Amino acid sequence: MSEIVVTLPDGSELEVEAGASVEDVAYEIGPGLGEDTVAGVVDGELTDRVEPLYEDCELVIVTEGSEEYLQVLRHSAAHVFAQALQRRHPEAKLAIGPPTDDGFYYDVTGVDLSEDDFEELEAEMREIIAADYDIERVERDREEALEIYADNEYKREILETEAEGEETVSFYVQDGWQDLCRGPHVESTGEIGAVKLLSIAAAYWRGDEENDTLTRVYGTAFESESDLETFLQRREEAKKRDHRKLGTELDLFSIPDVTGPGLPLYHPNGKTVLRELEAFVDGLNDDQGYEFVETPHLFRTELWKQSGHYENYVDDMFLLDVNDEEYGLKPMNCPGHATIFNQGNWSYRDLPIRYAENGKVYRKEQRGELSGLSRVWAFTIDDGHLFIKPDSIEREVNVIMEQIEEVLETFDLEYEVALATRPEKSVGSDEIWETAESQLRDVLEARGLDYDVEPGDGAFYGPKIDFAFEDALGRSWDGPTVQLDFNMPERFDLSYTGEDNEEHQPVMIHRALYGSYERFFMVLVEHFDGNFPTWLAPEQVRILPVSDDNIGYAKQLKNRYLDDFRVEIEDRSWTVGKKIQTAHDDRVPYMLVVGDDEQEAGTVSVRDRFENERKDVDVGTFRNHLENEIGEKHTEPDFVDGSE
Amino acid sequence: MSEIVVTLPDGSELEVEAGASVEDVAYEIGPGLGEDTVAGVVDGELTDRVEPLYEDCELVIVTEGSEEYLQVLRHSAAHVFAQALQRRHPEAKLAIGPPTDDGFYYDVTGVDLSEDDFEELEAEMREIIAADYDIERVERDREEALEIYADNEYKREILETEAEGEETVSFYVQDGWQDLCRGPHVESTGEIGAVKLLSIAAAYWRGDEENDTLTRVYGTAFESESDLETFLQRREEAKKRDHRKLGTELDLFSIPDVTGPGLPLYHPNGKTVLRELEAFVDGLNDDQGYEFVETPHLFRTELWKQSGHYENYVDDMFLLDVNDEEYGLKPMNCPGHATIFNQGNWSYRDLPIRYAENGKVYRKEQRGELSGLSRVWAFTIDDGHLFIKPDSIEREVNVIMEQIEEVLETFDLEYEVALATRPEKSVGSDEIWETAESQLRDVLEARGLDYDVEPGDGAFYGPKIDFAFEDALGRSWDGPTVQLDFNMPERFDLSYTGEDNEEHQPVMIHRALYGSYERFFMVLVEHFDGNFPTWLAPEQVRILPVSDDNIGYAKQLKNRYLDDFRVEIEDRSWTVGKKIQTAHDDRVPYMLVVGDDEQEAGTVSVRDRFENERKDVDVGTFRNHLENEIGEKHTEPDFVDGSE
Repeated sequence: MSEIVVTLPDGSELEVEAGASVEDVAYEIGPGLGEDTVAGVVDGELTDRVEPLYEDCELVIVTEGSEEYLQVLRHSAAHVFAQALQRRHPEAKLAIGPPTDDGFYYDVTGVDLSEDDFEELEAEMREIIAADYDIERVERDREEALEIYADNEYKREILETEAEGEETVSFYVQDGWQDLCRGPHVESTGEIGAVKLLSIAAAYWRGDEENDTLTRVYGTAFESESDLETFLQRREEAKKRDHRKLGTELDLFSIPDVTGPGLPLYHPNGKTVLRELEAFVDGLNDDQGYEFVETPHLFRTELWKQSGHYENYVDDMFLLDVNDEEYGLKPMNCPGHATIFNQGNWSYRDLPIRYAENGKVYRKEQRGELSGLSRVWAFTIDDGHLFIKPDSIEREVNVIMEQIEEVLETFDLEYEVALATRPEKSVGSDEIWETAESQLRDVLEARGLDYDVEPGDGAFYGPKIDFAFEDALGRSWDGPTVQLDFNMPERFDLSYTGEDNEEHQPVMIHRALYGSYERFFMVLVEHFDGNFPTWLAPEQVRILPVSDDNIGYAKQLKNRYLDDFRVEIEDRSWTVGKKIQTAHDDRVPYMLVVGDDEQEAGTVSVRDRFENERKDVDVGTFRNHLENEIGEKHTEPDFVDGSE
Repeated sequence: MSEIVVTLPDGSELEVEAGASVEDVAYEIGPGLGEDTVAGVVDGELTDRVEPLYEDCELVIVTEGSEEYLQVLRHSAAHVFAQALQRRHPEAKLAIGPPTDDGFYYDVTGVDLSEDDFEELEAEMREIIAADYDIERVERDREEALEIYADNEYKREILETEAEGEETVSFYVQDGWQDLCRGPHVESTGEIGAVKLLSIAAAYWRGDEENDTLTRVYGTAFESESDLETFLQRREEAKKRDHRKLGTELDLFSIPDVTGPGLPLYHPNGKTVLRELEAFVDGLNDDQGYEFVETPHLFRTELWKQSGHYENYVDDMFLLDVNDEEYGLKPMNCPGHATIFNQGNWSYRDLPIRYAENGKVYRKEQRGELSGLSRVWAFTIDDGHLFIKPDSIEREVNVIMEQIEEVLETFDLEYEVALATRPEKSVGSDEIWETAESQLRDVLEARGLDYDVEPGDGAFYGPKIDFAFEDALGRSWDGPTVQLDFNMPERFDLSYTGEDNEEHQPVMIHRALYGSYERFFMVLVEHFDGNFPTWLAPEQVRILPVSDDNIGYAKQLKNRYLDDFRVEIEDRSWTVGKKIQTAHDDRVPYMLVVGDDEQEAGTVSVRDRFENERKDVDVGTFRNHLENEIGEKHTEPDFVDGSE
């Protein structure tokens, strides 16, 4: 038999016989590792430990300590759920049951389920776990599998499509119960430390609105009860902070039925936050020599054919017919910016050209996938496109990295960085890829960033740097991206005159600091639990007159001292207690309580939304602090705790 | 015979016999007026002096001194053109030939015309004028008219549609030549003092792209040669200032074919001006308690059905189908704002609610009508909608008037104001109309404005105040409008809780300070001939180093002193003369010339774009002036002429 080369995560290479399994390779490395092996990641894909390897590949061995272990465990938990369901409801028909980021789901039909059934099903699942059944992989003839699933059109469809042409398919069997599945799975049901069913939703078979509606049961699983407990607490917290709930409570936005799905209306409070967010990045862009442009939302689809987006994005585009010509709402801003660049005659002296636009884009997601501001039809990108000489990649990317880091740090968001390099299929010369990748590495090194390299994960048109950030609930989000592009300049025939008087092609950079305002806004609402930093807060200060007699003094304070801030006066005839409670509920960073004492002394009592209080404060002192806190974009109101 | 009541412009009423002509009424008033009468305006419509009046009406007598006289004269000039054309080209077939704001046109066919033919045709027209033929109105049977036009399908179509059911139709006859026409006309061709043919364009019969293409000949006419001369000079100046020409020269915007018609792309220079314009009105709105909102561009057409726009605007809307549901790009922002209002529970204490949005709207004009920024498919309105108690109309409208006047005065635009009152068909109670109109009159009186009243010219849903302004070329433009609305609150079922604890309906006000940014921007470009006031100028200052040795000093000036302004350094190795000329061509308000002398002394030489110059200027002095000039929005750079 021939030999193949397996590349391990540390870059070392191992020669093994073709046909060796993931587990065999692990044993080759060491018998301890061999024994601990749960599964493998072969060229990025999670694979059973018995899977034979026939070609050179990259391999990560998955053990209990691995990142991917939880995924394997949850996949097995999905099987445990399915077995428990069929024990109680033998008539239940199974479709698919994969692991997800947070747990797993199983799409089922033929049975009437509600969340009231969860307790009983969880009890059954715990019995299966307690019994610690072995989970075994069994290969069966595809024909035999089709017979097994004579009554299950979903499994048959899988066998007739994905498994078409295969002679055998794999089943996983536990306690005589079996499921068609590629795996991998843990060795026995007892490995699952804790399970919980979470919710029920309707889902289309294969996500297609034309297909049958199935019942999707969501659940999760962990190695231990305490991990599950932590997860459930965070989930509870996330529910409280859900931006859809807070969006209504804080009057930030709405998505009414009459105006359409996925098309948010920003109310004054939400728009105030958006305007501050916009002013922040506009200022960063101004400082770095960006020029602002504006492009329409509607374009002839000719443009998208030129850019190549039409071919790939047409199904996600909103298209319309005007005078028998096809038009589309823009799914991205880059072709418009490239067209503006193309109206000029550029010399090397003019480059870099940096265009910025807070540009609204439209992408037709499935209606069922729409959710609050996290998945919408229309969203605004703080989009920037740079047209640069190939030798200024390092300088320009460095500035962009600085901007991105400043933005994420301003919101106290921890981040990770990864460099995605040239994939197998790519456009552009070896020379441009080499200079580009080496300049990106130089930036990352020079900035002292601890970054991952994702070999081959770049776009076909250029390498990129990806940010991922973590919010206060420990959730990870895809963050800003710096994407180099050697393709669009070619498609739009962009050029500049070099020092040599010849025409050259610029490199294009796509970059956004927030990405989608809608998504970033939604993350901030949940990250801060609606407690926006003072600079973002729709209402920054609320003055609470103790009695109606103090309203005049409140107005004086507002108009004479606090004119530059967003200040309201609570002039309803309520008790001070109720006024304070309402301001708390409205997440106002500062309350100024003014009664007769304050009015006589010409002072205020300052309370923040964390119930800290400082009495007898000079208004000027407070005003100066506020100016400073807002100017420096502190994340918390810190007057009372502050150093004054 | 019965009597009718004719109301004259001064409000006086005259009883005359039904069937009396316009001229009869004029003679009734006085024989002098009777003799001078050229035509009449009956209930707003221009009418021949022989037209009999059968019903009560409002009547304006048109004489040579009247505003409308030029319109009558130009209509006759259109006939003179048509007669001249048919003298030279008997095969020419006539369609329609109305007067326009600037002159007249005649749509013709069956003849091959170019501007080279103008001299010959003008000579023929002058002969007809010199002959001073009487212009006579003749009534003919419609049947006879159809025979006369046996070969002219356009005139026949008019006879079969507009004139359907009439027994007789009017012709105007001069020197045996005749044309089907409602009139009115002057008494004889000799009254036309001066004529000029201007241009040729293609036009669709009845403006419909499905119909025949005709040749449209534009011309104009005046009472005297000197009036014509003035007009032609202004026209020449307007051509030089054409925003489409300056838009390219100053790199403000483009409308490339690939992106689509009527959908402008703003380049950095244009967008800088737009951002300043936007910041100006945003600031005015902030000062007046407006709250900013944001609504999508795409809506379910349900919304437009609710608002009533669908019924009237559907042909002008960009519609699309999404999942078998009809959506449309918004042709206006008001229904979105009403929907946001509708998400809240409002008390009388919360009112007025004032929403502002720089909202892009889409209206599908005919492609042939599109022209630069003056007629586009997509434009942004600085839209504001107020939801107010009926008794605060006066206060709110007063503030809006203040804003509008401030905007127009900032740009040195002279304006006129008119109040349009309740039309015959209207919604809303007598009470609401009376209180609304009387409050609007009070505002106009209190502001000391000399305003016209246009009785019955209000919208069916409320009265309005219209502004018209005049630019530096003496052209009049429709300006901002303050429109009251009693209908949309009804259609959207808007309400607030009054002091009486009952639900009440607010009044809505629609208002914009610029109207369309695109249109206002275009007027400003032409009004200022591209010489934007310093606060708007894309580039405010250009530093011109005399030699390359002075570039370092130039950079110092820019970075240390002029950091807050839009400053560029001209660092190409050109002569100072060429640098100055280029800065002039680019309409840069200020040039700072810095040579060795300035560098040694630490000064600058300041030139403005009017070639004024001041030497040995301290940079701090210039900076302070600039700050002031921009802050106060002076219309001209006035440092050199200024008082420092």
